[in-house]
Amino acid sequence: MKLFDAAWAPSPRRVRVYLREKGLDIDRTVVDLRSGEHLQSDYLKINPRGQIPALLLDDGAVIDDSVAICRYFEWQHPDPPLFGRDAREAGLVEAWLRRIEGDCYAAAVSAFRNGNKAFVDRALPGEWPPIAQISALADRGRLMWTAFADILERHLQGHPYVAGDGFSFADIAAIVAIDFGIAIKLADPRDRPAIARWHGELSARPSMSA
Amino acid sequence: MKLFDAAWAPSPRRVRVYLREKGLDIDRTVVDLRSGEHLQSDYLKINPRGQIPALLLDDGAVIDDSVAICRYFEWQHPDPPLFGRDAREAGLVEAWLRRIEGDCYAAAVSAFRNGNKAFVDRALPGEWPPIAQISALADRGRLMWTAFADILERHLQGHPYVAGDGFSFADIAAIVAIDFGIAIKLADPRDRPAIARWHGELSARPSMSA
Repeated sequence: MKLFDAAWAPSPRRVRVYLREKGLDIDRTVVDLRSGEHLQSDYLKINPRGQIPALLLDDGAVIDDSVAICRYFEWQHPDPPLFGRDAREAGLVEAWLRRIEGDCYAAAVSAFRNGNKAFVDRALPGEWPPIAQISALADRGRLMWTAFADILERHLQGHPYVAGDGFSFADIAAIVAIDFGIAIKLADPRDRPAIARWHGELSARPSMSA
Repeated sequence: MKLFDAAWAPSPRRVRVYLREKGLDIDRTVVDLRSGEHLQSDYLKINPRGQIPALLLDDGAVIDDSVAICRYFEWQHPDPPLFGRDAREAGLVEAWLRRIEGDCYAAAVSAFRNGNKAFVDRALPGEWPPIAQISALADRGRLMWTAFADILERHLQGHPYVAGDGFSFADIAAIVAIDFGIAIKLADPRDRPAIARWHGELSARPSMSA
């Protein structure tokens, strides 16, 4: 088994934080995003999507998505549970996870890929036909980003963690998306008190330096 | 427990098909999307996101996402497993599910909401600040739609189902997204032979009329 990893980018960070929380150490190869190694033929033979992370299993199958890689490990190493401890939590973790992906992380990616000269005709991450940038989509991304921060703030005023009482993968997804947004200079949501409290507590976990 | 359901729209259909596959019959209330009942205060008190489906639990918690609702039931009714039978399948189902959501279903929603006069300033589904339509995003949606269909076709040439050997929730997500795209007049991907074979077999399942 081998994990294809990359520096800086949010999706591989989700997996590294998750593995650290689980105490798992997996054989890794680091792919260089800056030189475009993820879009060159050696890597595309492994993962035709041209995205990082990817997990190559011993039977040759490839799991080509960060959350899917974590769910693979969750099945094999259920403790501590990070995708919910019962049906109710499993539902709430997944609902928040999908909302973070669609409303928060997608907002940051929209702003980043459509408003950055490095991504002309590569407005979607990974291997696609040429996809033109849409500057209005960068604006929409910033609007979604702020709207989501307001929603998360109200939610965290009544809950210690994103999916409720316990730390879960929804927290990992949320903080990785938020740290990515801050890194690319979107409005810093930590000017909101509940997000500041939650972000500070989470950032103190050793896994977050992964 | 009560499920808030709606006619025609793809996300509630995912849940209905899933429940039929599991043989589960859940108390339902149908919300009328055409008259905008999902964006009126009675429903927003239950689900502030203004989206359908939502599952109201007996303790008052609300699971406000279609896939999350199915994962809730999967925990309580694991047989037949629809999110994978082992770690490998759990990973592959989730990877395809997230790819279908981000590359196929999102493409159809982009084309639909940004290219339809009914959604002026409501270019994102559910309760948001005013979000302007972006006509170039409708074009991007159509491009993504066709690129994904080509990828799915190559994949289904070597696999009976989306996530591999067995029917799973990834098939439900894919056929619901594809039927939605066909309904809104995107290019019909069933002109590709492997997609036509898979779509025909799936459509014959009794659950698909749900």
